[in-house]
Amino acid sequence: MGVKVALVVFFMFFVLCSPFPVKRPQHAPCKHLVLFFHDIIYNGSNAANATSAIVAAPEGANLTKLASQFHFGNIVVFDDPVTLDNNLHSNQVGRAQGSYIYDTKNTFTAWLGFTFVLNSTDHRGTITLAGADPTLKKTRDVSVIGGTGDFFMHRGIATIMTDAFEGQVYFRLRVDVKFYECW
Amino acid sequence: MGVKVALVVFFMFFVLCSPFPVKRPQHAPCKHLVLFFHDIIYNGSNAANATSAIVAAPEGANLTKLASQFHFGNIVVFDDPVTLDNNLHSNQVGRAQGSYIYDTKNTFTAWLGFTFVLNSTDHRGTITLAGADPTLKKTRDVSVIGGTGDFFMHRGIATIMTDAFEGQVYFRLRVDVKFYECW
Amino acid sequence: MGVKVALVVFFMFFVLCSPFPVKRPQHAPCKHLVLFFHDIIYNGSNAANATSAIVAAPEGANLTKLASQFHFGNIVVFDDPVTLDNNLHSNQVGRAQGSYIYDTKNTFTAWLGFTFVLNSTDHRGTITLAGADPTLKKTRDVSVIGGTGDFFMHRGIATIMTDAFEGQVYFRLRVDVKFYECW
Repeated sequence: MGVKVALVVFFMFFVLCSPFPVKRPQHAPCKHLVLFFHDIIYNGSNAANATSAIVAAPEGANLTKLASQFHFGNIVVFDDPVTLDNNLHSNQVGRAQGSYIYDTKNTFTAWLGFTFVLNSTDHRGTITLAGADPTLKKTRDVSVIGGTGDFFMHRGIATIMTDAFEGQVYFRLRVDVKFYECW
Repeated sequence: MGVKVALVVFFMFFVLCSPFPVKRPQHAPCKHLVLFFHDIIYNGSNAANATSAIVAAPEGANLTKLASQFHFGNIVVFDDPVTLDNNLHSNQVGRAQGSYIYDTKNTFTAWLGFTFVLNSTDHRGTITLAGADPTLKKTRDVSVIGGTGDFFMHRGIATIMTDAFEGQVYFRLRVDVKFYECW
Repeated sequence: MGVKVALVVFFMFFVLCSPFPVKRPQHAPCKHLVLFFHDIIYNGSNAANATSAIVAAPEGANLTKLASQFHFGNIVVFDDPVTLDNNLHSNQVGRAQGSYIYDTKNTFTAWLGFTFVLNSTDHRGTITLAGADPTLKKTRDVSVIGGTGDFFMHRGIATIMTDAFEGQVYFRLRVDVKFYECW
């Protein structure tokens, strides 16, 4: 009888222990979102459409053209529309707001610090990301460092893919937001 | 008898499981602080008093006046005094150090990345925040992404309120720092 | 018999509960790394060797010399080599990429936001840090706010020491990365 109880309790343990908070040893996400965001960099002549702007540049560079040397030293501030698919004109579910910093002289890498501010019928809240983005790699993982609202206290990993780009003015990112710590 | 043991164990489980670390399913904060900080932006003539400065701006803007178009593209670096009440001249308990980035062209929003560096008899340590701040909203939630010292490994949510502002030079923020993960 | 089961279960609880995820009430790190990184600031004449550049400055300052007043208002973007010892020419295990922001007018402090991108036989993945760095203190603690790859979902504290500096062009930091939350 005691053994049976022990077994039940042992089983109970594994069933019950993980949900405070929901952390999975197997590393399956407790929540998963796919978001696209669309960045149109101001180039001196597209003020009406631009969603981002170069605001800092290294010596000798200007603010209407990404710097030579892999844009090293450019800081770009953005407020980009977020959609659920790869169409810039789809219904917006929120904005991606923050900055990226080109930080390497011999290849394309950026440091991202930004927040998805979601405001749709399905999701209301913020998701904040930070990390290195080696933009030439097919997929790159960035840390999800916090959330609010529907994403209260969440943490996770965002896998970023460049979905499209046109010259140095437009690019679109697909972001798989996988939460591993949900509350 | 076995059933009784199972019940006791079940109860024990709920009592004991949550404190490793202190995470509450009910989402009551495990620690709560209210801090005020005071930002005086350098405008070209207030060097002695200013606690912050515009250090980046979009094309066509300068560094002594917040940019038009809702300050879009301005990066402001700050080292602001922190007090426990809304009086700029109250005893300082620390500094708020970091930057905010105005990131929207059609309303006021900023991206915050900064740290409360507290150094008082009550609190010694740092609290780091990051996230989107839609500054026109009465209250807005930003993620508390880390802490050190008395706030070792803490995480939480900071609810920010604009407590006062004077023109484009002074503003005061009230920050309710609610930790939900304490160590 | 039931009492014996309860005791076994009680013991089981302590043995099993903590590893989901590995969080230690005693605050012993679950993983520990020592990394050095080397920063060579562009000064107008060292383009070939420089690993970082001033990209923003307060009014009146320029981008080839750190600003007066404790560099207040300078933003420096960097992509610095990371080594396991204090020799700039040792084997690189990765890069430190991001920015630091000098944010005080009456002493040296910086706000760090950067990522260790490790790519060696021993470690592959990223570690992202954010926080205040009062650079004149012998040691200062900064939050480790996220990780990917080998450092999937990790959190911790990084203790930073200035290991060496030469004028305003070269400095070397030693970083003790102590993870307290491993997955």
